[in-house]
Amino acid sequence: MRKYAVIVAGGSGLRMGADKPKQFLLLRGKPILYHTIQQFLKAFPDILIYLVLPNDFLQEGQELIREFGPSVNIQLVVGGATRFHSVQNGLNKISEPGIVFVHDGVRCLLSEGLIKRCYEQALVKGSAIPAVAATDSIRIMNATGSQVANRNLVRIIQTPQTFQTNLLLPAFVTAYQDAFTDEATVMEASGQAVHLIEGEYNNIKITRPVDLLIAENILIQREQVPN
Amino acid sequence: MRKYAVIVAGGSGLRMGADKPKQFLLLRGKPILYHTIQQFLKAFPDILIYLVLPNDFLQEGQELIREFGPSVNIQLVVGGATRFHSVQNGLNKISEPGIVFVHDGVRCLLSEGLIKRCYEQALVKGSAIPAVAATDSIRIMNATGSQVANRNLVRIIQTPQTFQTNLLLPAFVTAYQDAFTDEATVMEASGQAVHLIEGEYNNIKITRPVDLLIAENILIQREQVPN
Repeated sequence: MRKYAVIVAGGSGLRMGADKPKQFLLLRGKPILYHTIQQFLKAFPDILIYLVLPNDFLQEGQELIREFGPSVNIQLVVGGATRFHSVQNGLNKISEPGIVFVHDGVRCLLSEGLIKRCYEQALVKGSAIPAVAATDSIRIMNATGSQVANRNLVRIIQTPQTFQTNLLLPAFVTAYQDAFTDEATVMEASGQAVHLIEGEYNNIKITRPVDLLIAENILIQREQVPN
Repeated sequence: MRKYAVIVAGGSGLRMGADKPKQFLLLRGKPILYHTIQQFLKAFPDILIYLVLPNDFLQEGQELIREFGPSVNIQLVVGGATRFHSVQNGLNKISEPGIVFVHDGVRCLLSEGLIKRCYEQALVKGSAIPAVAATDSIRIMNATGSQVANRNLVRIIQTPQTFQTNLLLPAFVTAYQDAFTDEATVMEASGQAVHLIEGEYNNIKITRPVDLLIAENILIQREQVPN
């Protein structure tokens, strides 16, 4: 079965207080995106990766791809106005059926094991959405105030959101809606159910400066005890 | 108005991989609980603090109290079988009306500003429950799978959960239920609404080794730019 990854790093925000977007910040001497891509290549060396970048950062993307050498298959895709449009641009490149991982570029700490479990479950179930239990109380706002959610039923959603291409590609042939906050919501809007699987607590998004520190700490531990 | 804090540190778990419970681990040379207590004393020097500890750690508690000198009012309380029972043991010590903060001992990074806002809002509204918006997609499991929650309506609940004692104390005169995951749920079970206010992203619970690193980083920044 063919394997595709659409790695979304379409943001050009500088909220981290650095001089480049967060996906290019260095972690153990390599850009965050390098670590992300490397995990997919470790899990599936024959994977075809579509790396979705802002138009202004294609040159940085080319330099990143060169680091992996000529044998790997990574193509740059220009991002769109929203995450939905960026993912759509990536999915539009796919012409042969297979399994596609849609992944946040700044979640560089996912394990090879998670990638493989997503693949196997999506093969069987059509989709695999990694999720973890909530450690805090969660409330949902309503007209009169808020209501506590049963903590046993709350799941925090991660990526790679993984799908059979013959289900996800048709779902993305649609107009954008504000409710499309991830690929699972697009899939559901097309009438397909999604299947949650166990995610990983370490599979964090790097969005704040302190997350870089956490990520470095986790990578150092991993170098000592490879997973 | 009298001010009370019930600081709950009833756990004796060693999940952090250390030789003592997490609330006694050192952060910038002082136990985590020291930092927590200090924030309440900075906000309200006249506050009466009930520190709820496991029975086996009362001696450590006495040593901690001594660090603050004779002028502060901190009393030790022995924890119960659940968080509900631990908080109940603390609340049972209160005899005069006032405002009570119920706070997780391992949330040592809350600001004085948050404590003061909780106080002011609880005075006006009866309760003040700090909460922050969710940064990830959240799903709620149901009989057929899961349903995405509208991210704009999801709130992640923190402490100090703050109440007028004349509302919270009667609410705690009840039998334990599994649904009592925090003080807000106990308050609601008594027929009272709770009022959410804006929390702080830095107001994290220290539960994993990496959280100590995050906390240290935040404290170092704060020493440079006091809040």
